[in-house]
Amino acid sequence: MKPLIIGIAGGTGSGKTTLVERLTQQFGADISVLAHDSYYAEHHDLTLEERRGLNYDHPAAFDTDRMIQDLEDLKAGKTVHCPIYDYTVHDRREETREVTPNKVILVEGILIFDNKALRDLLDIKLFVDTDADVRILRRIHRDVTERGRTLDTVMEQYLKTVKPMHEQFVEPSKRYADIIIPEGGKNTVALMMIMQRIAYHIEHGDIVSRQ
Amino acid sequence: MKPLIIGIAGGTGSGKTTLVERLTQQFGADISVLAHDSYYAEHHDLTLEERRGLNYDHPAAFDTDRMIQDLEDLKAGKTVHCPIYDYTVHDRREETREVTPNKVILVEGILIFDNKALRDLLDIKLFVDTDADVRILRRIHRDVTERGRTLDTVMEQYLKTVKPMHEQFVEPSKRYADIIIPEGGKNTVALMMIMQRIAYHIEHGDIVSRQ
Repeated sequence: MKPLIIGIAGGTGSGKTTLVERLTQQFGADISVLAHDSYYAEHHDLTLEERRGLNYDHPAAFDTDRMIQDLEDLKAGKTVHCPIYDYTVHDRREETREVTPNKVILVEGILIFDNKALRDLLDIKLFVDTDADVRILRRIHRDVTERGRTLDTVMEQYLKTVKPMHEQFVEPSKRYADIIIPEGGKNTVALMMIMQRIAYHIEHGDIVSRQ
Repeated sequence: MKPLIIGIAGGTGSGKTTLVERLTQQFGADISVLAHDSYYAEHHDLTLEERRGLNYDHPAAFDTDRMIQDLEDLKAGKTVHCPIYDYTVHDRREETREVTPNKVILVEGILIFDNKALRDLLDIKLFVDTDADVRILRRIHRDVTERGRTLDTVMEQYLKTVKPMHEQFVEPSKRYADIIIPEGGKNTVALMMIMQRIAYHIEHGDIVSRQ
């Protein structure tokens, strides 16, 4: 069976992760997930201080070619070894994570619609759209509470790279979305529609319509 | 079976009608349609010239209370008699159209998300979002080719009422959408997702999930 490849894009704090979690809770064994964040480029040549200063919100920060290759391999039924990124040291780990081909593949990240080759591999392109004020509040909560960063660091990074890169690359890529979902994983009406689309694919494969 | 009530909003020329047509083609016998346009207020007291000069893009141009009553009746399993609006004379006709209760009810119009009581009756709120330049081109095509109006008349009405009312009422009501669909009925990925949601309801009723 040809896999259904679903791309989930949207700004930082938009609700992408919650949406991915809801879908994997519902369809766990039938879903594999690739996160663009795992494909941050490796920088073993730089010091920690230099790596801290990099722009992680620009398309060039990612090794997107490797992600595309992995996605093509999954689509062709091959198991892949997805890199693991370590946020504490801002670099790629040596070990990898095995991802197996599956009926449904979720591809998630702020910039996945910016790259045409990647975009062209996606059967369904969902963009999670949430107001910027709500998004920054969620990011502060995540980075300060869960990742142990200071409020000042989060603010500085947000204003220096996150916001300008969002406006330059993320927001314009919304144009490529098939469906725009306000508020992400907390939007139960949209969630239900996506779940039924996935359930249909898992049960019936590629058949487009019931008639 | 409780009907699934789907609201389809979006600016003039956004693709609402195409979307409604695709859905009625697919599910004809199981779908009833209520268009807000049919509920334009009657103005038997005004001259044709006076009626031509009215603002048809303001929420007050509609007899929305009657539409809400009809929708509540349909939801309660009662047949309703929906008004018919005659664009050639800019007034309501004497005859009505019989609309029967059904498994799925589509409610369509530029301003249906502006009214809270109406909004609260909708199980799924879809907003068709299309760029303003594409929308005005479609409107010109429709009004000049299909409704025999002059380009000057269309331009004047667009700039005088359609555009300002869109910005004041239609665009802000997008905030209430559960799902935003770029390009409406020509968006086959979104169309397929909506069709599967409807097919699921027709076959299974209100059951939320397959598990």
